Amino acid sequence: MPTIQLIAFDADDTLWHNETLYRDTRQQVIKLLAEYASPAEIGSRLDEIETSNLRHYGYGAKSFILSIVETAVEISNYQVKAIEIEQILQLGKAMITAEMQLLEGVEETVAVLSETYPLMVITKGDLLDQEAKLARSGLASYFRYFETVSEKNVENYRKILERYQVPASQFLMVGNALKSDILPVIQLGGHAVYIPYALTWSHEMKIDTDIADERYLIIERITELPELVANLEA
Amino acid sequence: MPTIQLIAFDADDTLWHNETLYRDTRQQVIKLLAEYASPAEIGSRLDEIETSNLRHYGYGAKSFILSIVETAVEISNYQVKAIEIEQILQLGKAMITAEMQLLEGVEETVAVLSETYPLMVITKGDLLDQEAKLARSGLASYFRYFETVSEKNVENYRKILERYQVPASQFLMVGNALKSDILPVIQLGGHAVYIPYALTWSHEMKIDTDIADERYLIIERITELPELVANLEA
Repeated sequence: MPTIQLIAFDADDTLWHNETLYRDTRQQVIKLLAEYASPAEIGSRLDEIETSNLRHYGYGAKSFILSIVETAVEISNYQVKAIEIEQILQLGKAMITAEMQLLEGVEETVAVLSETYPLMVITKGDLLDQEAKLARSGLASYFRYFETVSEKNVENYRKILERYQVPASQFLMVGNALKSDILPVIQLGGHAVYIPYALTWSHEMKIDTDIADERYLIIERITELPELVANLEA
Repeated sequence: MPTIQLIAFDADDTLWHNETLYRDTRQQVIKLLAEYASPAEIGSRLDEIETSNLRHYGYGAKSFILSIVETAVEISNYQVKAIEIEQILQLGKAMITAEMQLLEGVEETVAVLSETYPLMVITKGDLLDQEAKLARSGLASYFRYFETVSEKNVENYRKILERYQVPASQFLMVGNALKSDILPVIQLGGHAVYIPYALTWSHEMKIDTDIADERYLIIERITELPELVANLEA
């Protein structure tokens, strides 16, 4: 039976709400640009521009805001006003400094687990932004390690495990995104626990279903995690 | 005498030109906004906005572009046109995808050193951006490790050395910024080699001169490095 040496958590929408912040900002942008196009047009054009900018900009709030500015210019047919651009920049800064909303049961769960296991946060996105969020979350003291990667793929998980000298079979990853948190870890031979979030970003939904299999565990709430880990050890 | 176990390099303006790219973009922005303000006004307002945004945005091309958009809105007194905003976004994408210009002698030097020492890149800024630059530079195969930090301070260097289990006394850092690459490493008890770059960004110039001392070595060109390392080992 495995002895878990390291438990890693995704952060956004696993430890704290993040998607809701993006959805709220998106709604405010749609309202701000309402004179230029319908909500559906703005929303779908923003999705397209965001996706096509991923390879240049990567993930995170700054990338999102740059894509919103680009959408505003285009969807307004070059009519967008400077004051509206300023309002978009302000929405961006509000996102970056927003108060952290922990998911229910997170603090008690990581507190309990941190007594027995070294805990790590593995996020993708903007390093400064993610570091600041961990600090503001009040959870930093429970986590011994913090890693940010550009993509959560097999190669990057492999590098982290090598660096910390943890065999995949003794590693457990917890997250809300099958594609980023679960499947690459399973492929490496690790353990993964999937906690679906009510809202899931469209990029994360593009799963090659051939890769998906049943070798991970699904729970509904993070508070179920300590018992599940105890069972893995049994 | 020390046996160096690990040699780390700063990347921007140590391995490849970067500052020139920012200066060029800055010049193009000044030209683009010339109808709204004088070059000096645009330049100094951009510097101020960039500095005041550092705590929100951190370092890197995306942060720079967001600050340029903010400057354009403000300096034009809300007269900036959507097409000009679009041109700014295009300047940003051009920066992100620009061809890498290695500094003279870099490739031969890291090739030689990589035969004897594990080499690392330590950068601050945007993770995706820095990873992409290393890949495009053609130098990736010489470097065993790659680390990005939000700030190059004593604490973050300490964490890296702990993670790789390298004593500071057996660590050598090479870079073009006293504040980021040299002084924190010296404070930890490591070795540092300073290679000044012709252009240095104003943030990097703000050094508490009390901390500065003479315990680091200065060379003019990276090609002097292998001999210097050999002398350290002697």
